[in-house]
Amino acid sequence: MNGAESLVRTLVGGGVDVCFSNPGTSEMHFVAALDRVEGMRCVLALFEGVATGAADGYARMAEKPAATLLHLGPGLANGLANLHNAMKAATPVVNIVGDHATYHRDYDSPLTSDIETAAQPFSGWVKTSPDAKHVAQDGAAAIAAAMKPPGQVATLILPADTAWNEGAGPAPAPPIAERAKVSHDAVKEAARVLRSGEPAVLLLTGLALRENGLALAARIAAKTGCRLLAQTFNRRMERGAGRVPIDRIPYPVDQALKTLEGVKHIVLVGSRIPVAFFAYPDKPSLLAPKDTQFTTLSTLEEDTLHALEWLADELGAAQQPIEPAQYGPMPLATGKIDSLTLAQSLGSLIPENAIVVDEGVSTGRGFFPSTRNAHPHTWLQNMGGSIGIGMPLATGAAVACPERKVLNIQADGSAMYTIQALWTQARENLDITTVLLNNKSYAILRHELANVGAQNVGRKALDMLDLSRPDLDFVGLARGMGVPGERVDTMDEFNKAVARGLTHKGPYLVEVMLG
Amino acid sequence: MNGAESLVRTLVGGGVDVCFSNPGTSEMHFVAALDRVEGMRCVLALFEGVATGAADGYARMAEKPAATLLHLGPGLANGLANLHNAMKAATPVVNIVGDHATYHRDYDSPLTSDIETAAQPFSGWVKTSPDAKHVAQDGAAAIAAAMKPPGQVATLILPADTAWNEGAGPAPAPPIAERAKVSHDAVKEAARVLRSGEPAVLLLTGLALRENGLALAARIAAKTGCRLLAQTFNRRMERGAGRVPIDRIPYPVDQALKTLEGVKHIVLVGSRIPVAFFAYPDKPSLLAPKDTQFTTLSTLEEDTLHALEWLADELGAAQQPIEPAQYGPMPLATGKIDSLTLAQSLGSLIPENAIVVDEGVSTGRGFFPSTRNAHPHTWLQNMGGSIGIGMPLATGAAVACPERKVLNIQADGSAMYTIQALWTQARENLDITTVLLNNKSYAILRHELANVGAQNVGRKALDMLDLSRPDLDFVGLARGMGVPGERVDTMDEFNKAVARGLTHKGPYLVEVMLG
Repeated sequence: MNGAESLVRTLVGGGVDVCFSNPGTSEMHFVAALDRVEGMRCVLALFEGVATGAADGYARMAEKPAATLLHLGPGLANGLANLHNAMKAATPVVNIVGDHATYHRDYDSPLTSDIETAAQPFSGWVKTSPDAKHVAQDGAAAIAAAMKPPGQVATLILPADTAWNEGAGPAPAPPIAERAKVSHDAVKEAARVLRSGEPAVLLLTGLALRENGLALAARIAAKTGCRLLAQTFNRRMERGAGRVPIDRIPYPVDQALKTLEGVKHIVLVGSRIPVAFFAYPDKPSLLAPKDTQFTTLSTLEEDTLHALEWLADELGAAQQPIEPAQYGPMPLATGKIDSLTLAQSLGSLIPENAIVVDEGVSTGRGFFPSTRNAHPHTWLQNMGGSIGIGMPLATGAAVACPERKVLNIQADGSAMYTIQALWTQARENLDITTVLLNNKSYAILRHELANVGAQNVGRKALDMLDLSRPDLDFVGLARGMGVPGERVDTMDEFNKAVARGLTHKGPYLVEVMLG
Repeated sequence: MNGAESLVRTLVGGGVDVCFSNPGTSEMHFVAALDRVEGMRCVLALFEGVATGAADGYARMAEKPAATLLHLGPGLANGLANLHNAMKAATPVVNIVGDHATYHRDYDSPLTSDIETAAQPFSGWVKTSPDAKHVAQDGAAAIAAAMKPPGQVATLILPADTAWNEGAGPAPAPPIAERAKVSHDAVKEAARVLRSGEPAVLLLTGLALRENGLALAARIAAKTGCRLLAQTFNRRMERGAGRVPIDRIPYPVDQALKTLEGVKHIVLVGSRIPVAFFAYPDKPSLLAPKDTQFTTLSTLEEDTLHALEWLADELGAAQQPIEPAQYGPMPLATGKIDSLTLAQSLGSLIPENAIVVDEGVSTGRGFFPSTRNAHPHTWLQNMGGSIGIGMPLATGAAVACPERKVLNIQADGSAMYTIQALWTQARENLDITTVLLNNKSYAILRHELANVGAQNVGRKALDMLDLSRPDLDFVGLARGMGVPGERVDTMDEFNKAVARGLTHKGPYLVEVMLG
């Protein structure tokens, strides 16, 4: 058994049974091994950023890592932006990158580059396997590294001769580290702060945003009077009917400052200190008042659900009544399309148990309140800020959950970074309805020009934010990659088109023309 | 004058007057400065790999660098694959990457990453500007670094506050290093080898492949009996009628070994020792016979044309008669489309003074001989092996040379990495005809599976090389980005469609269906 086969067997044995790949010559033995090993599903992407973003979406929903298969330094490079997002989301990814045969690297042939250094800023763990005898155990180590709480990108570099030389057979599935429990001191300190009577916020992310985490947090809030808030961006939130609704810290700095005005205590529940996404002249980087005291109940690495249970017990809040959201969206909106009418209709349209992938950027920012009383659903966001995550994330989520509908709310500018994902959605017949918000611009940057204080902006600058001349035809682009779709100009058309997409089994794109 | 404006003025003053950009919030002051400074052309790309590949194509033709403008670590990451190619081509690029304001980086907001480390493997020079007072002189240093012979990627990282704080005004244009002359010893040693009568090859790349370099090399060959060969991949070759024709070392290892069989001496003229692109089991990495002696006439950094002149003089070859190619292509091919008939027709179709961008990969590999007697033209190749260079390179070449027609020979698989380039071609109305070779597969990898010794390959593996299910419709994709085109199934249709594209002023795509 060669090294490649021993690695594929190790991955499958370790529960890593999906591989999002864009292979080349140096990965051919890995590819050839796929047919000799039962149980590995290999999903082809036409661009590496699709593969890495899909691995992120997959792991967020499957609760275990997928593998990627990328071709040397440049193949890795094309996947780095979405690995950045995965890293910031603490998503486990077994990121496999082929390299030249060990003895060939010294010849500095065209595709030679320093893969380890390139991977370092976007990985929590990096290793180059030295030879075919070690590649299986390195694969097992990569799985363990990826799943180390809270999850991280583990990059395994695979020189071609580690794949084709005789291996040592599969390595046993690695032991997976469990989340550490928080200390009683941390619970007592959080309880003391919440009992103080001073204005306090319980700031949630991670597992705290699942149904039971939200319920526990709500009991604590009901008991102590503290407010609940979620981070601006979160890996995965359970929302809609039956779940306790929660607001997020707003993205715009001024709104965030207003939201946190007067807060004396922020108790961090897996979350981080709230900071501005970007710096702006004369605005603070820290979003909380300067005298806010931060208390850590649990870090992202720790067992947040256990910590919330313990805190609820400590506070005598375990039986406190709570009010989850009821099903009851507003009726479908009619007339002109804008962010408010879209938000209103989405509340009705989100199907039971859907996965909503949110890369709506400026238009989509307002979709949260109106979907609070929708059917129960899962909401996935971009935590790294690198746009071009939406379509890949939806792709991976759909691979992980074939029985659930994926609704990808997708802005136009960001769609174009990884538009190739549509082809993978078509090939795999993934059940994804993409709502493509076409406002013909990088609209967010129009606000940002003003926010950073740029004045007297002229035509050349505005051209850099403009996506017309020529207009993009997303229905045509989708069709060119095998995905059917339609374009809508009114809310009536929107409501019908999205319903058609959601009824259709397989990928569908609704291009929404915004004025 | 803020830092951004002082930088833009410095760039324009230093001759860098084109910027291929995909900006974000942190680059807004740079963008805003564009309207306050005369003479900077800013070209928007929808994906950063388009911007960096276009900067490569631009500089190869303009003989001076373009700037890029990329958004933080992930924006850089998306541009790295084509920066890898530019670096391997020794193309000068002033690669500008925005970052968070200096004081904001400590807050580790979502888009924070270690940009310097990410840039390092793909840059010859990296610097983070410390403040607005230094940004102009750092820009001048970046120009000088990019243009240091033979040319390199110079990455300048620009924290947002270096752009918006008060700057020190533009810095003077930097002194540009000249190419060093070779030593008389190098010339004498090369002359001695070539006079020895032993089988010798003059291996050319870089400036030696311009019209005068080829002529000098041909005189030397005529006088001494040595053979002329070019590297497999070259930054830029002048070809067709009036230029001395030259073969390249073939890409397949067995063919390369056969080409260099029996060679005793290889004289390197800006070139490197010939090595295999990939390693294969039981095949050598070095393509020359083991006892070949290498003699360096000039390195890529040195003044190759001067070295060739001197060597011709030393050998008394300066007046030696030579035989440049005559105009006289074969007639247009008819009937079935295959790589031979395509090659035959291209010989006739290449217009006078065209720039041919070659990312034909497997189908395009045979296009060289039949285009030898075409109209004079320039041929650009991928020197780094990262596919997805063709459309961006064509984009940059067309910006550099608006009076010349660009013919982009483009394989289907590689096209999909940077397909967004078509939109930029449409927006700028660039005069590019793309011949899109659609064989519905990563055909090169089918050969490579066998070459690396993978056996009993099954369906799952072959699926990873297959681009059908669904078929890609490149005419539809082009139209979706504003580029007209047509699909052809016979050589008659091909001949007419390419002629139509070449007559049309602006971008055009001909999708060639291969059996």
